[in-house]
Amino acid sequence: MDSRTRLPVVGMVGGGQLARMTYQAAIALGQSLRVLALRPDDCAALVAAGVQIGDHADLGVLRTFANGCDVVTFDHEHVPGEHIRTLAKEGVTLYPGADALRYAQDKRAMRERLTQLGVPVPRWSPGDGDVAAFAAEVGWPVVAKATRGGYDGRGIWLLSTVDDVARLPDTELIVEERVPLRRELAAVVARSPFGQVAAYPVVETVQRDGICVEVVAPAPGLADHLALRAQEIAIELAAGLGVVGILAVELFETAAGLVVNELAMRPHNSAHWTIEGARTSQFEQHLRAVLDYPLGDTSPTAPVVVMANVLGGAGVGMPVDERLHHLFATEPSARVHLYGKQERPGRKIGHVTVLGDDVDDVRARAARAARWLREGRDS
Amino acid sequence: MDSRTRLPVVGMVGGGQLARMTYQAAIALGQSLRVLALRPDDCAALVAAGVQIGDHADLGVLRTFANGCDVVTFDHEHVPGEHIRTLAKEGVTLYPGADALRYAQDKRAMRERLTQLGVPVPRWSPGDGDVAAFAAEVGWPVVAKATRGGYDGRGIWLLSTVDDVARLPDTELIVEERVPLRRELAAVVARSPFGQVAAYPVVETVQRDGICVEVVAPAPGLADHLALRAQEIAIELAAGLGVVGILAVELFETAAGLVVNELAMRPHNSAHWTIEGARTSQFEQHLRAVLDYPLGDTSPTAPVVVMANVLGGAGVGMPVDERLHHLFATEPSARVHLYGKQERPGRKIGHVTVLGDDVDDVRARAARAARWLREGRDS
Repeated sequence: MDSRTRLPVVGMVGGGQLARMTYQAAIALGQSLRVLALRPDDCAALVAAGVQIGDHADLGVLRTFANGCDVVTFDHEHVPGEHIRTLAKEGVTLYPGADALRYAQDKRAMRERLTQLGVPVPRWSPGDGDVAAFAAEVGWPVVAKATRGGYDGRGIWLLSTVDDVARLPDTELIVEERVPLRRELAAVVARSPFGQVAAYPVVETVQRDGICVEVVAPAPGLADHLALRAQEIAIELAAGLGVVGILAVELFETAAGLVVNELAMRPHNSAHWTIEGARTSQFEQHLRAVLDYPLGDTSPTAPVVVMANVLGGAGVGMPVDERLHHLFATEPSARVHLYGKQERPGRKIGHVTVLGDDVDDVRARAARAARWLREGRDS
Repeated sequence: MDSRTRLPVVGMVGGGQLARMTYQAAIALGQSLRVLALRPDDCAALVAAGVQIGDHADLGVLRTFANGCDVVTFDHEHVPGEHIRTLAKEGVTLYPGADALRYAQDKRAMRERLTQLGVPVPRWSPGDGDVAAFAAEVGWPVVAKATRGGYDGRGIWLLSTVDDVARLPDTELIVEERVPLRRELAAVVARSPFGQVAAYPVVETVQRDGICVEVVAPAPGLADHLALRAQEIAIELAAGLGVVGILAVELFETAAGLVVNELAMRPHNSAHWTIEGARTSQFEQHLRAVLDYPLGDTSPTAPVVVMANVLGGAGVGMPVDERLHHLFATEPSARVHLYGKQERPGRKIGHVTVLGDDVDDVRARAARAARWLREGRDS
């Protein structure tokens, strides 16, 4: 290809909905994102022209994939850090790098590092210590978390008594105080190798059964100083941990202020609203960051933006095609994103986004749209 | 696949930038648009997972392509009407149908039909009649147009004298008066098989050397009654011609009112601004129309939206990657769409869109962004 028109090639490891939506954004930038997917029917593998099917935990597979890319990035945290390090030594550019990604892969490492950095976190203890003594100190119940692999409520256990401690699975854990939270927030930023950082408005995330069901942007009624503090924490962490790409910082708002719950170093569910709700979507922003392009405008496009996840329902008889018809007819303002997934109860099969002026109205419309798509009924 | 989660499959004939941008929109609707492209390096073929390479003028190729689709639609007007009719008789659903598409394929048929419908058009005459007598009646110069295949200024000849008539190529033509136009406008609507029609705001299109270089939405200073009349004409034509999908009506604004210049029955350059500038892009709208879904909200997302085409420059030394860097740095508000094309002078390689409040400011920013991407310099 003519060197003047050649663009660097980005590859994304993982074929989920994050890669699928990044793929859409890549097209506009003149790219055709390459995808390493586990299965041909993974969300992104269904739509990407350049797909390699293979196991992201296999170094040889990763190396073959990286050979065709100028930059490799990730749709999930499951690539072993030692493989990332090996490839980096071989000259592959991977963002975020292993040293940063570690803090999104290992909750114990993350808690230790954030404690060092002076970033507020819940009181916590390694799970191989005296859990009962820790719980006695901070007060029962406490929360045990697998250091690796948990998501959407998995890998988390509420411990009410010493008996619960004995029932924990045999896996590496940390134990944390149960934070008396008002609500959950997320601060999402992007950082480029050059060091530019761009912050999105801080959002409220609403969880049900450990799964995010709704995101409200900006977080309603959040005090300015807390919004600023949340963005500062995210910016400090992006720089302090050397993140390149999107960094999502999940926070608890408490009476005493903010504490950091989790980190993710990839496009994140808490910023899906940016596709229509911000001048630059998190997916384009992630690409711009890993390509070391100047970052895009993070301004919101409406006073209120609400994203509602669509979870697969149990025993819905109506075909999704018909549900989509009803949704479009009843909520013409809803923007729909379907991920091409088979439906299973509780599985995220898509999301809807509604923009507007009044937070109650926009939330109600988003919830209604998600319900139509999930259940094929209004209430 | 589970019948509950199966969506109808849309196929698009043609692999250009329109198919490429429709592909992006399809992903959000849970689709993976199939594409019939002439060449593997066509814009859409570079990004689509399901591509068939073949000639859209070959009935056998079209039949094979249609076999894998529930609905077939078009990125251009070059599929022979008889093939569309044959496939329709065989049970294939094609939108727009041959009876409608004819009026976007054949300028003489279009002029005859619009004249019948009482829609204002320039005074015109079949090219096989007495061109000199027609020109003497309406006044020299006149404009000769090939009835088929013209685009971006090709297939159009300005005739100043009888001598020019003799120099016309041996192809089927119509001849039209040269309309004393103030400017060019476009009215874009979508229509579904159900009969729903949705109209976008009327825009001004700016041409240079016969190629659209800029679109301003809404058309600045357009009198309300003219904007309404332009939308009415487009709606009447969509229904009157039985269009399904996007219908773009190119109009001349004259001292005496509006006259229709051209029709296109597919996503159109005059509505690229809708990707960021309207609640529903023309590409999603086209898909919703051919899928017979309820149509989406056509409201603009900003008071002023300007789209500027990026044409390949001659002898630009700076790689596009570097030009993109400069553009993002100097015009962070610009939304970029690159089509994955090799650059050739005058070839549309992408477009940029800028949203804002002040028309002069937004036009200047869009022009500046397009210039950076085209020439790698500011002025």
